[in-house]
Amino acid sequence: MRKLSMEELGRKSVEDIKDVPKFPLIVVLENIRSAFNVGSVLRTADAFLLQAVYTTGYTAHPPHKEISKTALGADKTVRNIHFDKTSLAIQDLKKEQYKIVAAEQVVGSNLLHQFKFNPKEKIAIIFGNEVTGVEQETINSCDGCIEIPQLGMKHSLNVSVAAGVVLWELVRQRL
Amino acid sequence: MRKLSMEELGRKSVEDIKDVPKFPLIVVLENIRSAFNVGSVLRTADAFLLQAVYTTGYTAHPPHKEISKTALGADKTVRNIHFDKTSLAIQDLKKEQYKIVAAEQVVGSNLLHQFKFNPKEKIAIIFGNEVTGVEQETINSCDGCIEIPQLGMKHSLNVSVAAGVVLWELVRQRL
Repeated sequence: MRKLSMEELGRKSVEDIKDVPKFPLIVVLENIRSAFNVGSVLRTADAFLLQAVYTTGYTAHPPHKEISKTALGADKTVRNIHFDKTSLAIQDLKKEQYKIVAAEQVVGSNLLHQFKFNPKEKIAIIFGNEVTGVEQETINSCDGCIEIPQLGMKHSLNVSVAAGVVLWELVRQRL
Repeated sequence: MRKLSMEELGRKSVEDIKDVPKFPLIVVLENIRSAFNVGSVLRTADAFLLQAVYTTGYTAHPPHKEISKTALGADKTVRNIHFDKTSLAIQDLKKEQYKIVAAEQVVGSNLLHQFKFNPKEKIAIIFGNEVTGVEQETINSCDGCIEIPQLGMKHSLNVSVAAGVVLWELVRQRL
């Protein structure tokens, strides 16, 4: 099992990527302080060909030196838009007919592996602050909530890992 | 959709967790420099009730101040063992009858969503250095390789995100 060389990986350029059709999936990052996490999510959004990453509230957002360092160029290939308030991002998503889902542990939230996504639907997933999660006001504007089963002591994943898991679940169903 | 309180989340204690049966899944981290990534993987291993995290080579490993900060206690709940050489970790895993799979882009590697895991099998997944990946010598000792489909410009996810995605795929099939 020989490892592939850089040439064999066939990386696309920033220009190539602009013309590639994307999955109608958008990640919304609400009040995420860590530029490291935002950069990591941008990198995941590039790998999984997402439509965009929206940042809201006090989420670190491009242009930003630390984000560039972690995103390794994905801040240039992934469409990213900042909104001062999450409600403005939601307004935009509703206009574009996205179904809006928060990743949050709420009364009656759906476990990720049991949630029936329609693979043709436009879906936006909101991830909230590392400590306090998605704002209750934001949850009230969502169409639903999903929850990654967490079985151990902590009941919380790093936010960029959580985003990777949920996005993989959505992309997997569309491959 | 009301958010759950800390009490409602019903977190387990370090003592509780010791007695909970784990999934026979082990993550091996080979030559991962970033303590942040190691801490993040420990947190994922806690959430998904893995058997252990093995660190090898120059991977940052507990006890380690930065890891404790990122792992948020998972360095205490997840069994973690350090091996100076990956070959020693592999020897241990083979003795314990684990199937050993590297997460690496190689000639003929299997895409994650197409790989048929046996949900009853003991599986160890090896993740390699952030830049150079899993060592060729290590790959030669593995039973197979899997690859997360990466469709964008960069062809690489943050290693703790990649681990989250692969572990979710394995755990999902066992829930």
